[in-house]
Amino acid sequence: MKLEIFDTTLRDGAQTEGVSFSLSDKFAIVKALDEFGVDYIEAGNPGSNPKDMEFFAAASGLKLANAKLVAFGSTKRKNIPVEEDSNVAALLQAGTPCVAVFGKSWDLHVTEILRASLEENLSCVRETVGFLKSRGKEVIFDAEHFFDGYKNNSEYALRVLEAAAEGGADVLVLCDTNGGSLPLEVHEITKTVCERFPGMRIGMHCHNDTGCAAANTIIGVQAGAVHIQGTFTGIGERCGNADLSVIIPNLQLKAGYSCIAGDLKKLYDTEIKISEITNLSVPNSKPYVGESAFAHKGGMHIDGVDKVPHSFEHIDPCLVGNRRKFLLSEVSGKKAVLLKIRNIAPELTKDSPETAEILETLKKLEHQGYQFEAADASFELLVKRIIGKFEPHFELNMYKASSEFPVPKGETSSNAMVKIKVDGKAETTAAVGNGPVHALDAALRKALSVFYPELASVHLIDYKVRVLETGQATGSGVRVLIESTDGQNKWVTVGVSTDIIQASFAALVDSLEYKLCMEDARRNSL
Amino acid sequence: MKLEIFDTTLRDGAQTEGVSFSLSDKFAIVKALDEFGVDYIEAGNPGSNPKDMEFFAAASGLKLANAKLVAFGSTKRKNIPVEEDSNVAALLQAGTPCVAVFGKSWDLHVTEILRASLEENLSCVRETVGFLKSRGKEVIFDAEHFFDGYKNNSEYALRVLEAAAEGGADVLVLCDTNGGSLPLEVHEITKTVCERFPGMRIGMHCHNDTGCAAANTIIGVQAGAVHIQGTFTGIGERCGNADLSVIIPNLQLKAGYSCIAGDLKKLYDTEIKISEITNLSVPNSKPYVGESAFAHKGGMHIDGVDKVPHSFEHIDPCLVGNRRKFLLSEVSGKKAVLLKIRNIAPELTKDSPETAEILETLKKLEHQGYQFEAADASFELLVKRIIGKFEPHFELNMYKASSEFPVPKGETSSNAMVKIKVDGKAETTAAVGNGPVHALDAALRKALSVFYPELASVHLIDYKVRVLETGQATGSGVRVLIESTDGQNKWVTVGVSTDIIQASFAALVDSLEYKLCMEDARRNSL
Repeated sequence: MKLEIFDTTLRDGAQTEGVSFSLSDKFAIVKALDEFGVDYIEAGNPGSNPKDMEFFAAASGLKLANAKLVAFGSTKRKNIPVEEDSNVAALLQAGTPCVAVFGKSWDLHVTEILRASLEENLSCVRETVGFLKSRGKEVIFDAEHFFDGYKNNSEYALRVLEAAAEGGADVLVLCDTNGGSLPLEVHEITKTVCERFPGMRIGMHCHNDTGCAAANTIIGVQAGAVHIQGTFTGIGERCGNADLSVIIPNLQLKAGYSCIAGDLKKLYDTEIKISEITNLSVPNSKPYVGESAFAHKGGMHIDGVDKVPHSFEHIDPCLVGNRRKFLLSEVSGKKAVLLKIRNIAPELTKDSPETAEILETLKKLEHQGYQFEAADASFELLVKRIIGKFEPHFELNMYKASSEFPVPKGETSSNAMVKIKVDGKAETTAAVGNGPVHALDAALRKALSVFYPELASVHLIDYKVRVLETGQATGSGVRVLIESTDGQNKWVTVGVSTDIIQASFAALVDSLEYKLCMEDARRNSL
Repeated sequence: MKLEIFDTTLRDGAQTEGVSFSLSDKFAIVKALDEFGVDYIEAGNPGSNPKDMEFFAAASGLKLANAKLVAFGSTKRKNIPVEEDSNVAALLQAGTPCVAVFGKSWDLHVTEILRASLEENLSCVRETVGFLKSRGKEVIFDAEHFFDGYKNNSEYALRVLEAAAEGGADVLVLCDTNGGSLPLEVHEITKTVCERFPGMRIGMHCHNDTGCAAANTIIGVQAGAVHIQGTFTGIGERCGNADLSVIIPNLQLKAGYSCIAGDLKKLYDTEIKISEITNLSVPNSKPYVGESAFAHKGGMHIDGVDKVPHSFEHIDPCLVGNRRKFLLSEVSGKKAVLLKIRNIAPELTKDSPETAEILETLKKLEHQGYQFEAADASFELLVKRIIGKFEPHFELNMYKASSEFPVPKGETSSNAMVKIKVDGKAETTAAVGNGPVHALDAALRKALSVFYPELASVHLIDYKVRVLETGQATGSGVRVLIESTDGQNKWVTVGVSTDIIQASFAALVDSLEYKLCMEDARRNSL
């Protein structure tokens, strides 16, 4: 049977602390998910959130290549005919081909939270599903707290599923709403359910409170489930929902489910895109899609990957649109450096004098506290300087930055002045900022933009400070890493000094030089 | 059988991109892990890294309450007697009671990477383990790439374990080195191994490349393994090692293994401490220890938790030292704060108006980016200010700090000026430094020493900078933590600002005030 992917970034994912989607964010995410190839996109709860209804109204003419839109809502309230329940009406009004309805399956919740009788709850489930089916909807029934319910009263939890099946539900979804379950028990319970409802599509909806949401989902599929709910990037309330970007490649590449939606080659790009829209960064260590997911540091590993690629890699990173990365560090050795400079200076071999010089310089700089494993752009500039391929775009003559207290009325705490020269023409300017580095960044870009308007598109997206030695405290060195973007590319530069301003400035200078080098290369290739 | 916890933060964790530990970082992490109660601490690879040997030399007199230190290294090279292998010699030289030795168990690696015959590799394993046992060491054998090896050639993978057992190994560890395995296969393979080696301690060492390292470890234990390797915060090469902060509570609270090391109530604090030392922040969404792990949004969930606490929570957050968080309510963390102020202001109860004010202020400051977990001294000053027990020792009227380039000949890059007042008497002075914070620190201490000569003994031993939001890069806020000492006591203070100079200055001021308060208390108690 084909496995179905059901994404709930826009509904359950929207519960994440600090996340909120604008209408255009929602459309951009729907587009990305559809292009990747998910089957269902749950886009909101029209009955409880007027903004979600607004989205469904705006989406009514939307043509999707792969996915169906889904509206989400609860079963009808007790003591009210289903036709008169406003939440159920809102579900119909959303106009989606498919609806997801959740109902209680933990007896404790029925009696203590809903304050209904166990039988009343069964009727609510049966009638709501039946009503929505009678209106031509595909109905996915989410059994809320199913695993907790099953562990407390398995008989009742199964009766809730039965009520939904009697109403005509197309899919019965087992929800680990509190996210507290572990894989072995999920396997056993899901297997029991699949045997109890032969031929019925059974679904998984896991939360990550035990750090096992992906594992629980996969093991649920191995127990017979065919419908997979989660969020593409794993966002969600508390510890997040099951992470589709991890589950999909695991199932496709490792568990033998080729019959699953999704173009794996777009996995990495889709993750970056959705994270950008959500305004959350992808953790470097994230499986499959993180920047470090295929990064090698130890010299032995680098050697091994070079000899037999899959010897130190669980999959080929190309399969998911990611790439292999060799990190430079004191333990990585000559081989790693050679592999890294291969793209920058393909003419160098391990016996070239420049290679020895690069290694020597690298060792000296690392001793000073530089670290190039994350700072690819600074490394590239360093190599180009050594092999004589670097032509500086500007000369830095002077800067001064200061910070003061008390902050003058109506002013910022800091200001900075810089003087640069381009082709003999000097430019001196100044700027203010929320801090001295901020002010210096503004002043430098202001001065350079006179000569290089293309720098207008560059902005910094991350700024990291690491104190190098703890022995000398504020007199000790600092390493600053800066991540920049021009909207299309991302690059990281590094600066080291005992003076945090100087270290930051060095990284800023490298960042802008790197952008200008990229522009040169682009122009030359036209 | 008792489950054993083996932490490898300082060895495998040190492979994390961007992570490097100083000698004092290593000691601080060992202390935190020992206090939490792990059984083994793998602290480095003395044969391949001189810095690791330096650590073992420095640690030779260290007394630990719970943990044994472990040195890590490979089996001997082929064609060399084990007594003459320098790596094996380094393992002995490290002087730890226990050693971990890794050997190949994937036939492909033996022939393609090691370029040895399958039999040669078995001898290397058997002889190395036997030699180390003959020197009185407890020997943990790490079967590298065991799961990949087993899937490729199960007979050979098992023979490698047998060779280690014949050598006298105390523990056989099944390593998922490439991190590519899924739970069900791990369960089956581990079960086979446990049946094949009855009575032998079997261990798990999982990497997180499928996002299943925690699940794989837990399911391995459920299949019979008793020895658990991982890193406390989950750091490690690529996607990280198995995360002990997730595995330990899952096993203790959910899988019925009460016989496992570790004081769960210290879980949260230990996570924060180790992350601070590593200079990585704990993701909000991290299971058990994240700030959002027990966060509830308003309305139904808060109602539910209030009616039946476990209805919307998979465990009681207190069990792991974390706390419930109501995102729209002010009752959060009252208990934790009460526990903290008990020593500073024992007269306060949960109903005192000052308690409410402390909570309110704390909430406001935490929202600004303050964090008092590590900054006890700043927290104490804050509480004293609110309850009217704080008398400032000086008034800060002004400071100016600047940094310039190029550095004037024979000068430092920075200078700072401060003006303070003590009992109406003003003192204005200035100082130079290697950076603006260094200069400011020197100037402030110079001015204050006129009135308080006891400040001469104070110096800073650590200075940490964390950028708070990544969205705005150099315009974003920073949090500075400063650790100070007077030779006898140590204390930590915190400052937050968009201006790094200002944040540092606030932490410096708190540090000196705290020392002066201590002096007052000492004088009053004479």
